[in-house]
Amino acid sequence: MTDIARSARSVGIVAPQTARFAEALPLQSGERLDGYELVYETYGELNAARSNAVLVCHALSGSHHVAGRYAGDDDDGWWDNMVGPGKPLDTDKFFVIGVNNLGGCHGSTGPRSINPATGKPWGADFPFVTVEDWVNAQARLADQLGIDSLAAVIGGSLGGMQALSWTLQYPQRVRHAAVIASAPKLSAQNIAFNEVARQAILTDPDFHDGNFYEHGKVPERGLRLARMVGHITYLSDDAMGEKFGRALRHGKALYSYDVEFEIESYLRHQGDKFAREFDANTYLLTTKALDYYDPAFAHGGDLVAALAAARAGFLVVAFTTDWRFAPERSREIVYALAHNELDVSYAEIDCPAGHDSFLLADPQYHAVLAAWFDRIEV
Amino acid sequence: MTDIARSARSVGIVAPQTARFAEALPLQSGERLDGYELVYETYGELNAARSNAVLVCHALSGSHHVAGRYAGDDDDGWWDNMVGPGKPLDTDKFFVIGVNNLGGCHGSTGPRSINPATGKPWGADFPFVTVEDWVNAQARLADQLGIDSLAAVIGGSLGGMQALSWTLQYPQRVRHAAVIASAPKLSAQNIAFNEVARQAILTDPDFHDGNFYEHGKVPERGLRLARMVGHITYLSDDAMGEKFGRALRHGKALYSYDVEFEIESYLRHQGDKFAREFDANTYLLTTKALDYYDPAFAHGGDLVAALAAARAGFLVVAFTTDWRFAPERSREIVYALAHNELDVSYAEIDCPAGHDSFLLADPQYHAVLAAWFDRIEV
Repeated sequence: MTDIARSARSVGIVAPQTARFAEALPLQSGERLDGYELVYETYGELNAARSNAVLVCHALSGSHHVAGRYAGDDDDGWWDNMVGPGKPLDTDKFFVIGVNNLGGCHGSTGPRSINPATGKPWGADFPFVTVEDWVNAQARLADQLGIDSLAAVIGGSLGGMQALSWTLQYPQRVRHAAVIASAPKLSAQNIAFNEVARQAILTDPDFHDGNFYEHGKVPERGLRLARMVGHITYLSDDAMGEKFGRALRHGKALYSYDVEFEIESYLRHQGDKFAREFDANTYLLTTKALDYYDPAFAHGGDLVAALAAARAGFLVVAFTTDWRFAPERSREIVYALAHNELDVSYAEIDCPAGHDSFLLADPQYHAVLAAWFDRIEV
Repeated sequence: MTDIARSARSVGIVAPQTARFAEALPLQSGERLDGYELVYETYGELNAARSNAVLVCHALSGSHHVAGRYAGDDDDGWWDNMVGPGKPLDTDKFFVIGVNNLGGCHGSTGPRSINPATGKPWGADFPFVTVEDWVNAQARLADQLGIDSLAAVIGGSLGGMQALSWTLQYPQRVRHAAVIASAPKLSAQNIAFNEVARQAILTDPDFHDGNFYEHGKVPERGLRLARMVGHITYLSDDAMGEKFGRALRHGKALYSYDVEFEIESYLRHQGDKFAREFDANTYLLTTKALDYYDPAFAHGGDLVAALAAARAGFLVVAFTTDWRFAPERSREIVYALAHNELDVSYAEIDCPAGHDSFLLADPQYHAVLAAWFDRIEV
């Protein structure tokens, strides 16, 4: 996979691959997807026993591009600090797979793809996909790669929900799971933030009921607002204060709606960048997948009963300053796993960066991950 | 003021009055307002010594209509549970004044008013107004009512900032101040939420750079989103969970963008209602007044030095579940007042409702207020 090692600790230059699936995928909504593609990347080598594969699940705005760089591109994969030779998820030991989820906008079949039934982009007609649907699609990718048993599944935030769901949907196929900065289901407040983001997109006049592609438009205003709201919830109040303060950029009030405080500049920049790159329908679908995720629902709200199906060994990690998915939410998972007498380690990391901590190279956090992966037999 | 007492504890039927000011008001921005009107209401009777007046300052979406009802209208004033005969702010003892701030949209001169220079609504040309400007305008209203010394100024949230500012701008004219669910300045996160709300309005195609009146439009989409974001910050995560849960309204997923969770219904309802009633320019101006408020700024960030000018007796109240203006923010004020050897009482109320608690009739909260007002000599 690696062409040139740009540094001793990077996987180097990588390239995405595409897997095609001809068999229809039944979805939780009752609909089905007839034939689809998943874009993925791999790092490290699959061993002869095919027992060292680790699947990395992405969160809302992530993708299959987890580590390394594309030729001619300066951007590292979104979890490059975690995945590589000598890194916590060590590619000298593990064969690591990153995959763009169904309904995504980074190459896997999604709302931007052509709907074979119409010859036009799917747009609003792309079916709703859930965490469970993603896991089913990922399992088929594992099939195609000849991997019967995953050494581990790992993910942060929405990625953590996929890791947890793997252990329930395919308990015999996943030996370990790392559930990081996640929750067993969204709170009403979490749903509220998602709803504001959705309403920003849905009410953007350029959204055209999800079929903006054929109008040559992009609902950039809505996507921009959605991302701005999201970013507030990714950082702690303190982290925001330390990173941007509330100092006036020009040392005095301008009495205008131009940028006056650094935090305004940060949010506008993040919003603008996202609006240029991300797909509005993917954003909507993904927030709904988050809202719907609730493994205890089918068990009358009993998470202990819901997690009884799991067989994996678990690592659960939370961050003290994460107010989006606070440590209490991780402890609910830990409690339910422990109650089922499953092997579970729990780490609560005192990192100031809020929910975004799971993406950062906090030394204590990475040490916990490195030790956990080190103990996994392949 | 009271025509009919609808119940023993209501001020009954009330009517707003209008005060006209011919003298220009210099503003903190360097601009000035030539002549303006303030709409206000009063409850109770001014005593012979003119010493029993209490000014109630409103927050973002409040108004002069603090207590009682208008004839033919079923809506109580926004703080009706606090103000009335036998209520914590007892109108049998006090002469209570509610006033709509300059730049507001409930009758005082604001962006919806006609700019005499153009004969058209002020719109985006209405000057920026600050907490200090509001207090100056309120002081002129007190002049006109023949009130030299206020027994107290009280307000919650942004209203608390005005109460605090009164004690610094007019230390000889205010004997007591109640600063409730407030902060000495916004945090970066507070500003971030305001900025998202502003961007929702500013980027609404119906905003027309603030001059939507002449286009016969209202930026309802933007106002709606602004209010939805606001409401998330007014409630605690737990209060939202208890009030709305995260239960599916129809007992199962609909796989649509219609309302599925109660919290979605609540937010959409609040947003729609607000968008029909409130003025977008007033919203923008008010969020900027919040952002700018920082009495310590002129003292190099030293709040103790900033509050040295105060002479009033203080009550500071915070709510344990308020994450918009958390108790820590109130304690900053308490510390700075105490350091100046001012008379300050502090109550931290364990009410589950978050920032909105200041509007509720929590028994402990009301008991604290009642006792404090009871001790005030008039």
